[in-house]
Amino acid sequence: MTRERFAAVDTDDRLATFRERFELPPGVIYLDGNSLGPLPRDTPQHIARVMREEWGTQLIKAWTACNWIDMPLRVGGKIAQLIGAQADEVLCADSTSVNVFKALSAALALNPQRKIILSTHDNFPTDLYMAQGLIRQLDKRHELRLVDESEVGAALNDEVAVLLLTHVNYKTGRMHDMAALTQQAHARGVLVLWDLAHSAGAVPVALNQAEADFAVGCGYKYLNGGPGAPAFIFVARRWQNQFQQPLSGWLGDVRPFAFDPFYEPVSGVGRYMVGTPPLLSMAALECSLDLLLKVDLGLLRAKSLALSEAFIELVERRCAGQGLQLATPRVQHERGSQVSFHHPEGYAIMQALIMHGVIGDFRAPDILRFGFAPLYNRYVDVWDAVEVLAKILDERLWDAPQFMARKKVT
Amino acid sequence: MTRERFAAVDTDDRLATFRERFELPPGVIYLDGNSLGPLPRDTPQHIARVMREEWGTQLIKAWTACNWIDMPLRVGGKIAQLIGAQADEVLCADSTSVNVFKALSAALALNPQRKIILSTHDNFPTDLYMAQGLIRQLDKRHELRLVDESEVGAALNDEVAVLLLTHVNYKTGRMHDMAALTQQAHARGVLVLWDLAHSAGAVPVALNQAEADFAVGCGYKYLNGGPGAPAFIFVARRWQNQFQQPLSGWLGDVRPFAFDPFYEPVSGVGRYMVGTPPLLSMAALECSLDLLLKVDLGLLRAKSLALSEAFIELVERRCAGQGLQLATPRVQHERGSQVSFHHPEGYAIMQALIMHGVIGDFRAPDILRFGFAPLYNRYVDVWDAVEVLAKILDERLWDAPQFMARKKVT
Repeated sequence: MTRERFAAVDTDDRLATFRERFELPPGVIYLDGNSLGPLPRDTPQHIARVMREEWGTQLIKAWTACNWIDMPLRVGGKIAQLIGAQADEVLCADSTSVNVFKALSAALALNPQRKIILSTHDNFPTDLYMAQGLIRQLDKRHELRLVDESEVGAALNDEVAVLLLTHVNYKTGRMHDMAALTQQAHARGVLVLWDLAHSAGAVPVALNQAEADFAVGCGYKYLNGGPGAPAFIFVARRWQNQFQQPLSGWLGDVRPFAFDPFYEPVSGVGRYMVGTPPLLSMAALECSLDLLLKVDLGLLRAKSLALSEAFIELVERRCAGQGLQLATPRVQHERGSQVSFHHPEGYAIMQALIMHGVIGDFRAPDILRFGFAPLYNRYVDVWDAVEVLAKILDERLWDAPQFMARKKVT
Repeated sequence: MTRERFAAVDTDDRLATFRERFELPPGVIYLDGNSLGPLPRDTPQHIARVMREEWGTQLIKAWTACNWIDMPLRVGGKIAQLIGAQADEVLCADSTSVNVFKALSAALALNPQRKIILSTHDNFPTDLYMAQGLIRQLDKRHELRLVDESEVGAALNDEVAVLLLTHVNYKTGRMHDMAALTQQAHARGVLVLWDLAHSAGAVPVALNQAEADFAVGCGYKYLNGGPGAPAFIFVARRWQNQFQQPLSGWLGDVRPFAFDPFYEPVSGVGRYMVGTPPLLSMAALECSLDLLLKVDLGLLRAKSLALSEAFIELVERRCAGQGLQLATPRVQHERGSQVSFHHPEGYAIMQALIMHGVIGDFRAPDILRFGFAPLYNRYVDVWDAVEVLAKILDERLWDAPQFMARKKVT
């Protein structure tokens, strides 16, 4: 393995030209697209157009003249193509957290004899927090039961109403077998809510094929929709009209402009709408989706795995004996699109990396996290990032006051 | 009254120069800022800067380097100045509907012996729908009781937990006496949740002086934050730490980056945060707020009343006998910043008005609604709008197939 070999692979990469479609600051290797995707080159112009030609010129008429009113379902339909769902099963709306609340409310109501929400200790906290908030509000007879990831299968029993699981673990990058776990859950009468925050746009997702019940996901990670871009919610057709979700805002009503005082949900996933969506942020997401939809998802996955594989191998070779411990599965089909390592000095090492132009992130207590986004990350980026990491470890560059001063987490 | 006199008043208007700070399409008189405020001239450049210099250049680091993380509380603090609240009592987040859910949940929990949410038949539907969704989810032992606006005082009794009222009625433009009703409610042990959708940035609001408990409001009407701009929630200091709201997302946690599996709400109004906010949309709102904060709110109110008064007087003079019936109070202190008329052919008349360059809106079943935004509406706009309205009525221009074809409301 040499840098020249890596550069040659980049030359042959059929996804290589997508990199030009992003604004990437010079001198930076960005391996944090799983936290915030970079700015697509077309987005500023698109948003400028929405502001000047739609909002500025059409004013209130833009809701119909520019089809703003259709945007949540239209954008949802585009996301559906990335996650193996029908267009009418996905809605772009609110935040992932709010969507967890809606979907969990539905799942509990649709499985009323059972009182347990099953999840994992290391699920992303907001999913757990929303479950806790829902339970407090409902009646406190429900329970959030947390197990280790390896225990999920065994914990599926006839007390469990819904399994709340993140498809790709945000810390370790471990990917669950969605089809197998969904089948296992269904066999025990358990509904499944998948959090696709680290999956959509990064790994193959086949919700319909897995017979998934509910899913939520994020617009600002691998979908590159911009900071705080609206999230999405998937509700399988068979469940859509079986429940009236509690955040029953006017845009989920069957006739929002009839101004009737009594709510009547519209048919379909549209009833998961609440209030008026943040149009500028959603337009930015739509712009980045239009780019992503040009990509062959099979190629995307293949390159993602090649990048993460190369990263692991190079780190093992160049940083052996430096205390890095791989947190991500070595087996490819269990890996999302990131690589994580434990290191007791993980915080300081990541600060030093960032200072040297390699941006990943740190997750308490000791995880160094590197996301690989095949649309803009190159093989030479992998090479160069490991070179920087090796230098920082070899020369103990992290062991300096400015990197050690741990940012207060409180 | 002559157009020349109106033009002269514009010349002397101390708010006149603010009009230049908005993009207003030529040939249009925009009287629908109570539905969607127009584009402030500075907003496109501000958003372009946030996209290129913050998102595009700083990437993930922008959360701290550009103070994105503070934005919801910082923008809330700016809104607080417009509604007579302390900076640490207001948070910018989510949609008005979602915020109604949070605040109602709090109010019911804080008044646990009482089971009634009191509101009015003609409150804006989403407020009622969110109450209905909450009650369905809670236990169905709660009740949403709807009365006419005139009956609110009499309906306040010791069964009522919370009064849910929109300060300025979206249809009629009638403004409630916030201080008096809040006092009356408190005297009967009732909490009050004010919806300020048609108040913030339009009329004087003194939440602290009125000893209000909770309030919500909209960013895209008189605040000019752009389509679907994030909303806000006010929680009086005395209630902030008394309740853990159910939409307990990670950004309302005391240590969001500790990634603890168990939620612990942060102190203060920050616990009303849920997920990651839509930054671009919130940045647009902040930009328009910075403009609004330069305005003397006393002058704003005086001009608003002068505009609506002139409009009513001119319509009464020029359109007498044409079937228009004033829906807005004639008494100034009961009026918000809009004027509404009933007319059996309201829909067709509004279509004709829009076609002739006067943009107001129609609200079923028969309301013509005209919003007055003193920052950009001129006295001559009032004159010209009434001229167009009179012509449309005099010549029955509305009575044409293209205006009569009522848009299907289903």
